[in-house]
Amino acid sequence: MTEAATTVRRARGGGGAARRAERTAVSVETAKYIERNIPNYEVLTEEALDVIERNAETILAEIGVNFVDNPAALDRWRAAGAEIEGERVRIPRGLARKLCSTAPSQYTQHARNPERNVVIGGKNLVLAPVYGPPFVRDAEGGRRYATMADFEKFVKLGYMSKWLHHSGGTVCEPTDIPVNKRHLDMLLAHMVLSDKPFMGSVTEPSRAKDSVEMCEILFGKDFVRDNTVLTSLININSPMTFDSIMMGALEIFAEHNQASIISPFIVGGAMAPVSVAGTLTQVMAEVLAGVAYSQLVRPGAPVIFGAFVTSIDMNSGAPTFGTPEAAHITYGAGQLARRLGLPYRSAGSFCGSKLPDAQAAYETSNSLQMGLLSGVNFMLHACGWLEGGLVASFEKFVMDADQLGTLHHFARGVDMSETGQAMDAIAEVGPGGHFLGCAHTQANFKSAFWRSDLFDYKPFETWDEEGARDTQALASIRVKKMVDTYVQPPLDPEIEARLRAYVADKKASMPDSFM
Amino acid sequence: MTEAATTVRRARGGGGAARRAERTAVSVETAKYIERNIPNYEVLTEEALDVIERNAETILAEIGVNFVDNPAALDRWRAAGAEIEGERVRIPRGLARKLCSTAPSQYTQHARNPERNVVIGGKNLVLAPVYGPPFVRDAEGGRRYATMADFEKFVKLGYMSKWLHHSGGTVCEPTDIPVNKRHLDMLLAHMVLSDKPFMGSVTEPSRAKDSVEMCEILFGKDFVRDNTVLTSLININSPMTFDSIMMGALEIFAEHNQASIISPFIVGGAMAPVSVAGTLTQVMAEVLAGVAYSQLVRPGAPVIFGAFVTSIDMNSGAPTFGTPEAAHITYGAGQLARRLGLPYRSAGSFCGSKLPDAQAAYETSNSLQMGLLSGVNFMLHACGWLEGGLVASFEKFVMDADQLGTLHHFARGVDMSETGQAMDAIAEVGPGGHFLGCAHTQANFKSAFWRSDLFDYKPFETWDEEGARDTQALASIRVKKMVDTYVQPPLDPEIEARLRAYVADKKASMPDSFM
Repeated sequence: MTEAATTVRRARGGGGAARRAERTAVSVETAKYIERNIPNYEVLTEEALDVIERNAETILAEIGVNFVDNPAALDRWRAAGAEIEGERVRIPRGLARKLCSTAPSQYTQHARNPERNVVIGGKNLVLAPVYGPPFVRDAEGGRRYATMADFEKFVKLGYMSKWLHHSGGTVCEPTDIPVNKRHLDMLLAHMVLSDKPFMGSVTEPSRAKDSVEMCEILFGKDFVRDNTVLTSLININSPMTFDSIMMGALEIFAEHNQASIISPFIVGGAMAPVSVAGTLTQVMAEVLAGVAYSQLVRPGAPVIFGAFVTSIDMNSGAPTFGTPEAAHITYGAGQLARRLGLPYRSAGSFCGSKLPDAQAAYETSNSLQMGLLSGVNFMLHACGWLEGGLVASFEKFVMDADQLGTLHHFARGVDMSETGQAMDAIAEVGPGGHFLGCAHTQANFKSAFWRSDLFDYKPFETWDEEGARDTQALASIRVKKMVDTYVQPPLDPEIEARLRAYVADKKASMPDSFM
Repeated sequence: MTEAATTVRRARGGGGAARRAERTAVSVETAKYIERNIPNYEVLTEEALDVIERNAETILAEIGVNFVDNPAALDRWRAAGAEIEGERVRIPRGLARKLCSTAPSQYTQHARNPERNVVIGGKNLVLAPVYGPPFVRDAEGGRRYATMADFEKFVKLGYMSKWLHHSGGTVCEPTDIPVNKRHLDMLLAHMVLSDKPFMGSVTEPSRAKDSVEMCEILFGKDFVRDNTVLTSLININSPMTFDSIMMGALEIFAEHNQASIISPFIVGGAMAPVSVAGTLTQVMAEVLAGVAYSQLVRPGAPVIFGAFVTSIDMNSGAPTFGTPEAAHITYGAGQLARRLGLPYRSAGSFCGSKLPDAQAAYETSNSLQMGLLSGVNFMLHACGWLEGGLVASFEKFVMDADQLGTLHHFARGVDMSETGQAMDAIAEVGPGGHFLGCAHTQANFKSAFWRSDLFDYKPFETWDEEGARDTQALASIRVKKMVDTYVQPPLDPEIEARLRAYVADKKASMPDSFM
């Protein structure tokens, strides 16, 4: 694994020379996306996969899916050979799968800094932050509605997080900006404050269009025509419903050869059957229909097989996270995605807890580990998720982002070189000795073991004297330190000015709306 | 998976009738040990395993291992064909593996309640609590030296923990009891306060003997002669050193056909090379030598391939837990154990954190999940471990014990029956509907999804009104409730009296020693 590192020097106005000197030389290092050198974990047998695929085709052929308020979509389906009844689309066996075959098995999403380009698919895993929470939380201010200032702070943290490859999309909802204008500010923040790849707006087809147009300013019109610079999240309204807003956004992105994650959004027992195999069958049917539709819009448009699926607590109705059934589904969907030959999106730093406490971390670790082993290629929500996705937590963002390092190191697999075998070290030390000072240890200790940059590894007495801080307290300090040392990555001032002008013009062109 | 349940009614003196009634009918349910219906995860290729096994034989043949202060062991090895030089034993290629072949691939450890018997080996996973901490911690009293009262409280919690199959051994060190007598009180507590299987003492060969003799009182002499009623922890003094105390205890247990875990104890970079493959090679060599020795003492004696291996923070020298390298080793050692045809012990609720906070839970989840997927058959330390094993935490004990439920449910695999496929439900609900009320959901929701008995699943407002408690606070309440409702499982009063007399006599026979 190579790691692209950039070291920037902090220099801004105000404050004394001593204070400035103290805070120079902040390392902003970003690891390359994960290229797995390990096998995937497969929970389903071939026979089980055959049954699920057959049942999914039965759903498409006999029950069908709804394309709502979208006559053009119905026309496309009719022309392709589907049977249309009102808004119901019944897809003959094999047709959806055949249409899916034009979708690429992997694609490159370009970043404005080419060192941050990501290849999505194959054995790779690209990590992106939490998406969608209307609230934020930190130890100081508690839980509150998210603002644009919070949004920008998260983008800065994402830019500075070594194990995060992607800047994401709606890292939180900036509720202080009108609904019909906030996508402009969000895109501007990703484009200016970070140099990692990012996501487009999907809340209206016109906002998807704005996303593409802003990319044309950032990357150049020709570049955007020939390359994928956006990966955006298209949720299916499960069960089996494709609404016109999401499909409208998908159509825009597909027409421009920009990538979409086509993703059932399922709380098991509510939007799908209360069983793993039944849920997987429905996921398969929905993805087949959605991906096939993307290829009807433009054959070859890049798409990702998405699965946001979790279990439910039938006592309270709350979605539950880090559970064994969610893991079964995530592993199973990965197998289905690979058989379909598509990149796979699932997992994340999922938890139901209200606080970044032990519950949050148990649930999150369960979810992150299964994401790695299930062959996920694009992991949205990889850090910062709290309270079932209602809250983006600053502390949990840096806690999770630190844990993502374990995925990178595990994915390297086991070094079986002579150095890895270390027979010289064992011979040198012999029975009853110790390895701390031996030549092999001296040569290899720096890179041998993953080390958290956040967790407490101190002796008990030191830790106690320093205030007996828990992980949340350590994370608060880290958030402050990161924000304080943030430096904007260089961007052509003319491009930045044109982006700001575009946003200003668009905002001026319509009245505020909070609907 | 079947679950053996016992419901006991609480009835003890003191307090009003109303208060008593309020707290009756405590369910003490214990799940059957896990029988995996899922594949193992295998991180190493066959070629890599061949290299490691070949290198392990090279270590045994060319470097050798030390059997210290143990002339009888050297005699046994000499007679078996090893080359002896001082205390160094060099074992010709293939000999150790051949000797290992008489060890059983699985065995039954009997409990005084036959419903609690466990079968260790094969696809099974048996879960046992933390072992060895000199300190305890709870939210109320902080960190302090462990006492016998703490020990008894942990045994009670273990007895009442649904997902725990085994009562363990030194759940904490009762430091208020003399070192040469505390094993008697510990064994008595396991025998009287719980009806789950337990572990013997290994800190002196004579204490191993006492363990067997107390079992002869509990189970009957004939029964102990014919059955395994103890599984005890024999640590290897890595690198490659077998001390006379541990080997003495192993000899006692093997002679009595009682089971031993033969377990390298390795902090990577200190007691083994700072590489995964090198560490696995050393583990393999040490286990081969230790298991082979057990079979020289008594062919057919039950033994477990143990691996307690963790990484190190080279900055502070602290052992680190839940790390990717520890996971590589745990997965790899599982593959080696299966190739050798032995039950496998590894993993646990490992963490380095001082508190049962997010760090503790991230590290623990990483370790528990890898334990399940690596094919571990006996997981010591499955709950309660804190601060690198220095501390047994009451809150973490119940937090981890709750998480162990996820391992049970994941191990069931995916139900591919007609009910699991749920095609009737998908047809009934159709596009745009919801599944909450459909017949399939009504019939299956109770057992469909694992549910924590501890975590918070409440709406934000309810949780906030109830004090915005974190996981540790919820766990404190649970510990108190469990201890308060504990009822001792029935035991023949005559046997209990004989056990107490044995302990009293032994204690009276020697002066106190705190060495």
